[in-house]
Amino acid sequence: MSPPRRRLVGGLDLGGTKIQAVVLDGRRNVIGEARSATPTTDGAQDVILALVSTMGSACAEAGVEMADLAGVGVGSPGAIDTRRGVVAEARNLPGEGAPIPVAAGFRTLADTRAYVDNDVTVGVNAEYVLGAGRRSKSLLGVWWGTGVGGGLVLHGDPWEGRGAAGELGHVVVKIDGAQCTCGRRGCMEAYAGRGAMEIRARRLHKRGRKTDLFKIMEKRGRTRLTSGVWARALENGDELATELIERALGALGAGVASAVNLLDVETVVIGGGLGTRLGEPYVERIREAMMPHLFVDDRPPRVQLAELGDLGGAIGAALLVPPGSPGRKR
Amino acid sequence: MSPPRRRLVGGLDLGGTKIQAVVLDGRRNVIGEARSATPTTDGAQDVILALVSTMGSACAEAGVEMADLAGVGVGSPGAIDTRRGVVAEARNLPGEGAPIPVAAGFRTLADTRAYVDNDVTVGVNAEYVLGAGRRSKSLLGVWWGTGVGGGLVLHGDPWEGRGAAGELGHVVVKIDGAQCTCGRRGCMEAYAGRGAMEIRARRLHKRGRKTDLFKIMEKRGRTRLTSGVWARALENGDELATELIERALGALGAGVASAVNLLDVETVVIGGGLGTRLGEPYVERIREAMMPHLFVDDRPPRVQLAELGDLGGAIGAALLVPPGSPGRKR
Repeated sequence: MSPPRRRLVGGLDLGGTKIQAVVLDGRRNVIGEARSATPTTDGAQDVILALVSTMGSACAEAGVEMADLAGVGVGSPGAIDTRRGVVAEARNLPGEGAPIPVAAGFRTLADTRAYVDNDVTVGVNAEYVLGAGRRSKSLLGVWWGTGVGGGLVLHGDPWEGRGAAGELGHVVVKIDGAQCTCGRRGCMEAYAGRGAMEIRARRLHKRGRKTDLFKIMEKRGRTRLTSGVWARALENGDELATELIERALGALGAGVASAVNLLDVETVVIGGGLGTRLGEPYVERIREAMMPHLFVDDRPPRVQLAELGDLGGAIGAALLVPPGSPGRKR
Repeated sequence: MSPPRRRLVGGLDLGGTKIQAVVLDGRRNVIGEARSATPTTDGAQDVILALVSTMGSACAEAGVEMADLAGVGVGSPGAIDTRRGVVAEARNLPGEGAPIPVAAGFRTLADTRAYVDNDVTVGVNAEYVLGAGRRSKSLLGVWWGTGVGGGLVLHGDPWEGRGAAGELGHVVVKIDGAQCTCGRRGCMEAYAGRGAMEIRARRLHKRGRKTDLFKIMEKRGRTRLTSGVWARALENGDELATELIERALGALGAGVASAVNLLDVETVVIGGGLGTRLGEPYVERIREAMMPHLFVDDRPPRVQLAELGDLGGAIGAALLVPPGSPGRKR
């Protein structure tokens, strides 16, 4: 039974740099969207205000009231208390990881129910329900961005273990290997995460290696090596960028193939900021990099680019609103 | 509803060196058991005859007829066609990997239904249902023997992916690392498998490294470094044996922790020939070796020794017989 066409839900993707909001109708079509910058100062209250206000803008675009929504889903980085709807330990958000009571905020400010879960989990679930994984019963999402997040759908349901499953970026691909930002050694993320790649690029550049990465960054008014900066440097054939991306692909190939050897999923979906920006040519490179490590190499899983693009996280968050949700708190 | 006390099932663990049979009553108590050597010559028919005859001996010990069994489960290495009950590609069994039609053999020779599945899968499932994992909803079995097999129970059900899940031994722990018997590089099994450890011990011994491993082997009339040989050498403080087991523990720590980072299971059960033989002191060593790699290290999973010991594989195989099985083919 599909939900009634009139049932409206909201979805918010809370990122370190931007907030993306969508309104979905009962057929899961996007009927409104809005985007704003994530507050960079002050604390939890500012983040909540920005979430509510961005959701309000998306509602306005859709020509509906926030009170018409059956609920709002929020995907966020950090450790999520899904029961109470609180975000904690999100180091990229204001407040230095202090708890952000999102559900309580929506209740107070907008009289609306909010449901919060991990950003990678909801993004991968969106691909499973509506995107590249919709024909699969089992799926591994590889969210390639600042870090490398993982999301799993097994037996047709999201798999979160005891709440912390999916740390694909911290699968060890090289014992005693490179230092990871998590403090450990040899994690896949220490080679493939955009954050780790930037640290290494800065170090090698400082030692005299030539690269246009930082020129491109400055020209774009950035202070970090964004996915767009990497993409441009690679297009230009920048030697250091190419070398670091090869290293990342080697680690992704080993780590993702290891996960497939363990789980034998039908489909691997590549998403995340860097995955989405680099697109299909690099998905093909990941496919190739996995091959030498796949135990059953005559029947590899499908490896596909995420289909929902930039809105995937917000759409996935909207799917958090349970079918029976009454919407407004009464 | 528990099955009636009078319902009897048989279980067979088909290994490279021995066949273990059990008869379970309706309360899953072992009421008969028998063991025989796996035939080392000729082909599939000899293996089937040995399976039927060992099952017959266990029935005799239990004081029942094979015709009284509701069915017989068989755990086997190799690639299993569970639907047709055929074992294939089992290189450690006679016939060089040629198909062994186990279910058809039992039907013809004993008028009994047989159900076949992977030996690690059934061993892990036995621990989940009756052993060290019986209080857990999610479990990773680490079967440490000639190779390193893995078995998963997630959402309360065995997880086999598209049929080939659980290749924990072929998780890559060191990119460009040691040569694995599977032909790839850096697999956990290339460091931790008893087969790989023996290859390395022979090579280093040939190059002049001192060790008593091969003396102990010969004294016991063995041609391979069995788990018992390793255990004795370690008890004696043999330097090479100690060094190789440290290397194995390092790889196990990284590989098992990687799987936990990805899946966040409640419990890890250590079984297999070497795991069972070395016992709790080495389970503790594996626990310690995992710690530096666990992403959520303040809440590690339980890591426990398999409880069902030598009979675990056969008991797990007996659990393959479905509750509604009519037993004799009619």
